[in-house]
Amino acid sequence: MSIEILVGGKIPPDNVEELRKTFTAHVVTETEDPDALIAEVGPRVRGLVVPGFRGFDRAMLDKLPKVEMVSVWGAGISELDLDAARERNIVVTRTPDDSKVAVAELGLGLMLAAARWIPDSERVVRSGAWETDGYPRMGVGLAGRRCGIVALGVIGRFVAERAAAFGMSIAYFGPRKKVDVPYRFEPDLKTLAQQSDFMVLCCPDTPETRGLIDAEVLGALGPDGTLVNIARGPVVDEDALIEALEKGTIRAAALDVYANEPHVPERLRNSDRAVLVAHIGTQIQDVREKRKHFFIQNLQDHFAGRPIAQAARVLP
Amino acid sequence: MSIEILVGGKIPPDNVEELRKTFTAHVVTETEDPDALIAEVGPRVRGLVVPGFRGFDRAMLDKLPKVEMVSVWGAGISELDLDAARERNIVVTRTPDDSKVAVAELGLGLMLAAARWIPDSERVVRSGAWETDGYPRMGVGLAGRRCGIVALGVIGRFVAERAAAFGMSIAYFGPRKKVDVPYRFEPDLKTLAQQSDFMVLCCPDTPETRGLIDAEVLGALGPDGTLVNIARGPVVDEDALIEALEKGTIRAAALDVYANEPHVPERLRNSDRAVLVAHIGTQIQDVREKRKHFFIQNLQDHFAGRPIAQAARVLP
Repeated sequence: MSIEILVGGKIPPDNVEELRKTFTAHVVTETEDPDALIAEVGPRVRGLVVPGFRGFDRAMLDKLPKVEMVSVWGAGISELDLDAARERNIVVTRTPDDSKVAVAELGLGLMLAAARWIPDSERVVRSGAWETDGYPRMGVGLAGRRCGIVALGVIGRFVAERAAAFGMSIAYFGPRKKVDVPYRFEPDLKTLAQQSDFMVLCCPDTPETRGLIDAEVLGALGPDGTLVNIARGPVVDEDALIEALEKGTIRAAALDVYANEPHVPERLRNSDRAVLVAHIGTQIQDVREKRKHFFIQNLQDHFAGRPIAQAARVLP
Repeated sequence: MSIEILVGGKIPPDNVEELRKTFTAHVVTETEDPDALIAEVGPRVRGLVVPGFRGFDRAMLDKLPKVEMVSVWGAGISELDLDAARERNIVVTRTPDDSKVAVAELGLGLMLAAARWIPDSERVVRSGAWETDGYPRMGVGLAGRRCGIVALGVIGRFVAERAAAFGMSIAYFGPRKKVDVPYRFEPDLKTLAQQSDFMVLCCPDTPETRGLIDAEVLGALGPDGTLVNIARGPVVDEDALIEALEKGTIRAAALDVYANEPHVPERLRNSDRAVLVAHIGTQIQDVREKRKHFFIQNLQDHFAGRPIAQAARVLP
């Protein structure tokens, strides 16, 4: 039998198939009783695969005494208990997949979709109603408007570069001023909201960012302001957002992420000020092909004793 | 009675209202019998207002012997019979309204909407089906992909600048190579299609461009290629496009314009490879406010004997 690997979360079936060409894969999502599977194969598996959004914790590692490597499917490492891995000298890798570019591109796609009411216009054309009723709803442009970015990390910078090419002025909020960017730092979130036509959330989900966008911030964004969330659902107080959309105290919201995915509250789904997509930030061919290649390549490199590519290394 | 103006095509009602604060306006779209209205007031009117997409011809001017000025509502002048106006020394103005930026922004909005299937994803989320069925449809990114622009005029250049900021490589087709751009000129349309992941139509509607995008060009664009039309409907052979979408011989089409607007064929409306918006290229607040201001300002300047702003002058 080849080396045994536990796949501890949902990854695409064709990725599992590819993995099985080299390894013996035990997949928790293929069984009715994941705990039983882990109890059975846990003592034997030498590698763990997890999707980045799911990650792993100490309790999981404790059930896998022989695990020497975790191959993360994805680029995000916020859900990994790296301390627990470090204590056991477990190698941790991720996939260098350019997924942050994909998220930023969706950010611009959502800004434009909300600016011009693209999905709403689409519904009217598809229903045939354009022919009889016209489509009078007025959009807004990006040129000359103000883009406020919440957290100027890698994704925020990609959004800023693209928004600037549309002739938008860029400001950002975050824990500290960055010295290497030409954009204006705004240390007060409410002030940033007041001074933004489009406010784009690009921050991680941390205790500090939970509920960051509350009723007060939405009020500051105002009736001409559009909120774009490509970060994480919990960053926004979803009830406050629904109320702002229903009352028109903000112009629009374009969301890729929600508080309790994949559940989206009916009141949100009924809003004609909302643009709602299905957490597709990284759901592009290029990213998925890289993930499929690298999560297996990293396992192969480790178990063959080859050095792991610098861009893929998390630990050590 | 104030100076009499004929409004010879549909402009927004609040624009007519504003016009009536200074002029006596006769509006063809307010009557059941436009010919009768024109026959009645034609001999008296001194000014004509027409939306740019409708324009005017010699026959129209012949019915208006005292017209000394045409104030075009919009920036486009392709539908104006300027020779006929010149012969009578008629002043012609348009509205400097930045509408070409708005069209280019929609072009990027449509590229991203088709790249990521934004309206399709929206339908699935709104219906509640995401929660039960997920949303597995895979998008594509723009970074590293090839953008082929058909006609590098003002709009085409705006599209190119923005697409370049996404990390796309840019090539263009047109009647001649431009010396002042960093983009690659491709003199053969079919070759451009073959070498494009996104082909964006930015050309005018002329005898040369009618049906330019035919079955052969669509075949060259191929199953990974996406067509974006922000130009005019007749530029595309719509039957050939529908067939290409149904057979999957192109990846997608994102359209703002159609052969027989506002009619959109049912087969097109049913395509899950299509993104269809309601000719909203210039339908943004900023543009409409400028149009409302300038089409009246131009009339006022002329009839008060003031010079007309350079950016608004078409004739003389």
